[in-house]
Amino acid sequence: MSIEAQLQFIQEIDKLKSIERQTLNYYGGRRENSAEHSWHLAMAVLIFQNQAEHKNLDIFKALKMALLHDIVEIDAGDVVIYGDQSQKAEKEAVAAQRLFGLLPADQAQELSEIWEEFEKRESPEARYVASLDRFLPLMSNYLSGGYSWKNHQVTYEQVIEKNQGTMPKSVPTLWKTALRMLDEAVSKGFLKKRNL
Amino acid sequence: MSIEAQLQFIQEIDKLKSIERQTLNYYGGRRENSAEHSWHLAMAVLIFQNQAEHKNLDIFKALKMALLHDIVEIDAGDVVIYGDQSQKAEKEAVAAQRLFGLLPADQAQELSEIWEEFEKRESPEARYVASLDRFLPLMSNYLSGGYSWKNHQVTYEQVIEKNQGTMPKSVPTLWKTALRMLDEAVSKGFLKKRNL
Repeated sequence: MSIEAQLQFIQEIDKLKSIERQTLNYYGGRRENSAEHSWHLAMAVLIFQNQAEHKNLDIFKALKMALLHDIVEIDAGDVVIYGDQSQKAEKEAVAAQRLFGLLPADQAQELSEIWEEFEKRESPEARYVASLDRFLPLMSNYLSGGYSWKNHQVTYEQVIEKNQGTMPKSVPTLWKTALRMLDEAVSKGFLKKRNL
Repeated sequence: MSIEAQLQFIQEIDKLKSIERQTLNYYGGRRENSAEHSWHLAMAVLIFQNQAEHKNLDIFKALKMALLHDIVEIDAGDVVIYGDQSQKAEKEAVAAQRLFGLLPADQAQELSEIWEEFEKRESPEARYVASLDRFLPLMSNYLSGGYSWKNHQVTYEQVIEKNQGTMPKSVPTLWKTALRMLDEAVSKGFLKKRNL
């Protein structure tokens, strides 16, 4: 009976609500968790589609990517993007196998493939979702006076380096917005330049 | 510039992460919020589609419904389904107008229409999403020993009455699962029958 496997999966992934991220919610002053972040990302996928450089994005697929992209953190945890990422890919692949493997075989395969497509950052949908996945925490830092930038002593140059891979080409207007936020963060003193 | 309006909307809806629901997360012992619940519901929409009685559901639309369905709570709050609901519809309509109204006009209209379709519970997608939206908190109560049932002194008969509107026809296998959970809850003593 496929429903038993599906129920087990739906129960298991509820644990994503307990995975704490590095960034604060925009309101409320507590760290966000990966489940509510995934919802916010899915909403951003819906909302910013006319800002994407690619004009024929499969938004249905992009939504699935956003919903799924962090589920592996249930086993692998949330890794600081400015920290040591050496074992991240391996841990997450094992996590994907266990977690998606709870589902009936056809669904396990479909979800694994969508997650892997996101991880590769090659398709326009993967690059679009990845850009938004970077933008939202950047905006969180902008709104909170640099909460996680300060915690991890991140510089302006590091933020640029981490974000310029996909965002400028994939969602250029959002990249402009990001640059404006970063400039303001520097001028207000809550993001430091390397040589200042 | 549509992006300014979109950024404002994305910032505003972050408040959904601060709307507390009546039910507990399946793990962690705290009440869930409406943003993480919306993520969980969207995942359920993806996962249970082969259990739906209707075989040609528009799952893309159903996903959007799940993501949007609680946004009005930012202004209108979360209302106990067993409590007074007299002003709920009116408050939520005003909230929808303000919140979706933050967006550029074409997006405001599209999202409002999807939300209204969900509220009417007429289309197969609306009935499917509404069924899952009822099932997930029922499962939370089942797993927590009846946390919100006890808090609101809800009886077995009330749960049946609140859930039998759409779930039995829309997702029959899930309804069977729900009945099994309710029977077990009664036999274990954390859900009371009216006449016992």
